[in-house]
Amino acid sequence: MADPARGFRRSEFLRRRDALQVGMADAGLNALLLTTAPDIFYVTGFLTRFWESPARPWFVVVPATGDPVAVIPSIGAELMGQTWISDIRSWDAPDPEDDGVSLLAETLADLVPERGLVGTPMGLETHLRMALGDYLALTARIAPRQMVDATDVVQRVREVKSEAEVTKIRAACAVADRTFARVPEFAGAGRPLDAVFRDFQRVLLEEGADWVSYTAGGAGQGGYGDVISPATAQPLARGDVLMLDTGAVRDGYFCDFDRIYAVGPPAADVLRAHAALYAATDLALETLRPGMTAAEAHRILCEGLRAQGATPGGGRLGHGLGVTLTEWPSFTPKDKTVLRAGMVLTLEPGAEIAPGRILVHEENIVLRETGPELLSSRAPADLPVLE
Amino acid sequence: MADPARGFRRSEFLRRRDALQVGMADAGLNALLLTTAPDIFYVTGFLTRFWESPARPWFVVVPATGDPVAVIPSIGAELMGQTWISDIRSWDAPDPEDDGVSLLAETLADLVPERGLVGTPMGLETHLRMALGDYLALTARIAPRQMVDATDVVQRVREVKSEAEVTKIRAACAVADRTFARVPEFAGAGRPLDAVFRDFQRVLLEEGADWVSYTAGGAGQGGYGDVISPATAQPLARGDVLMLDTGAVRDGYFCDFDRIYAVGPPAADVLRAHAALYAATDLALETLRPGMTAAEAHRILCEGLRAQGATPGGGRLGHGLGVTLTEWPSFTPKDKTVLRAGMVLTLEPGAEIAPGRILVHEENIVLRETGPELLSSRAPADLPVLE
Repeated sequence: MADPARGFRRSEFLRRRDALQVGMADAGLNALLLTTAPDIFYVTGFLTRFWESPARPWFVVVPATGDPVAVIPSIGAELMGQTWISDIRSWDAPDPEDDGVSLLAETLADLVPERGLVGTPMGLETHLRMALGDYLALTARIAPRQMVDATDVVQRVREVKSEAEVTKIRAACAVADRTFARVPEFAGAGRPLDAVFRDFQRVLLEEGADWVSYTAGGAGQGGYGDVISPATAQPLARGDVLMLDTGAVRDGYFCDFDRIYAVGPPAADVLRAHAALYAATDLALETLRPGMTAAEAHRILCEGLRAQGATPGGGRLGHGLGVTLTEWPSFTPKDKTVLRAGMVLTLEPGAEIAPGRILVHEENIVLRETGPELLSSRAPADLPVLE
Repeated sequence: MADPARGFRRSEFLRRRDALQVGMADAGLNALLLTTAPDIFYVTGFLTRFWESPARPWFVVVPATGDPVAVIPSIGAELMGQTWISDIRSWDAPDPEDDGVSLLAETLADLVPERGLVGTPMGLETHLRMALGDYLALTARIAPRQMVDATDVVQRVREVKSEAEVTKIRAACAVADRTFARVPEFAGAGRPLDAVFRDFQRVLLEEGADWVSYTAGGAGQGGYGDVISPATAQPLARGDVLMLDTGAVRDGYFCDFDRIYAVGPPAADVLRAHAALYAATDLALETLRPGMTAAEAHRILCEGLRAQGATPGGGRLGHGLGVTLTEWPSFTPKDKTVLRAGMVLTLEPGAEIAPGRILVHEENIVLRETGPELLSSRAPADLPVLE
């Protein structure tokens, strides 16, 4: 598959703007204030790793009609000027006296009537990326305009991916597919886990990742425990199960899936758990449909596991992804978010083999009207064995 | 130099706890609420790339006396249990009904008297990493206890590094030093910039980075413009100046410095600008002392540039670093933060060669009573030339 072109056409951003403005109108919002890297990237195409520095806040205001306005540190003005955004207002940040608050307040006063509402995401899986004190000062400065929660407005738009976005995520998945195929080159009995993690990132770059924002993994005899720790120098040993998981980034879009490997011949309980994970994923691939809720997806995966005699484990059993490693919804019993065609999701069943020993299997899909379409290449049905 | 051991002794964390509690007592705080990856890593040693997922909030509460309490998603309980923290309270996140708010409110009610004050960072270069709506609900839940700004309490402690921390940052700098020495292996005329960026990250991993949270760069004829863009496939050409900048991470600590290379013989104005940057850095290395302010450091670097006939450019001319890529203070005319022995800082003079063409030079130092000690190996005085 040829790599897709970089960036998006202007029409993609106009579609996003229009969709947000429809949601804003429904919610009675006069403007939307965005502060995080993914929300700002989504609306503008502004893509940079500079967000790694917590020094400066960045703002984009989507008005009720017309184009978004960027209110950003001057260091980013040139790059923002290369996007489709034309109204760019900047200040020299960080400024201990006024770090963009006045400029943002003036912009909101320009765009929002006095009794108007400014929405910003305040709900689950969101945060406000600006100094809390500045936010409180802003709310006073723009009064009687009011700040209100706009989580739903943003999430209902971002969660349904365009074909252009699906193409980006598929390309990120292909990078990881090629990398997982090369794991036997650098992982096996005797190899320290931290060296394996380092090579895993190196090969992701070689296979086309722009950068590697996330890798995780685990290894242990007959299954692993915690999946969020950095690697230690402990060498892999025969009888271990190795899990490698990645969020590699290509053109601003993530993949997020893992692969499992046995080091030497796997134990019978590992093979049983792996078969259960595989069957549960198959069941979800066959039966998941738009209109179901995230909670129903959770139920399908749990039933698939239990039908094979496995015990569901490992937290939520899937989630959204796209411009961040993980997006809502979460496949948990409590998440009633309705699944819609165009959502990109992980199927991530976990099985507990014994207390503290789990296996997790993960695929990335786009949900179509007819059911899931795989974006990752389906993992092999037989657990791969490393020597 | 042998790589330092991983992690810190318990005594390091006790020192941090005590220093925070002294600052809290001075500020009249009954507890400190921390929500960001660097603040939580600093207090607990909890190190994971899992922060890349925005799905879940994480909380640490430092009480006025006694040990910190972690209030975290259950998926992190095992890893937190490997740190020195013993009081770990967890819930299954993300939970759309109550994403840790009740557990956190109960914890604060346990630790803080009814009329007490809970501090959290609200100032410059900080943000609150939890859903804003949950924060507002929390403030109502814990009333009459009040939330107040604790930026100074955290920053005055975190900004002075222990010798153990300096050792970590020196190790991260050494990774970048070894990588920069290998740039001629993968950069030169005809090589596309995106391939150079990818190899730069690959070699950082080979040279010992645990992961590469940040790389940036630029290339252009006789100087580069914006320094925060992703790389394009444009090949390097003779006459270009190439800048590569990195925040590579080792054991949770960052380096942050760049190196500049000429592609083919450099133009006279490039050589003059490079000599000015070098001389300005020398001036700062010779004259910077504890007791000066960040604004005075800015003045020294500007004077060093102007003495060589160069025009200062490129934003702030230095900043702190450590557990994030950039930390306060900022070398700008407005930042009155007092520099103290033990601060780890970048010296980052920029010179404008022509409108839209800059050069930036960067070194990492620890400020001692007697002046700066380099943590990066001093860049060569003569601009390196790539063929």
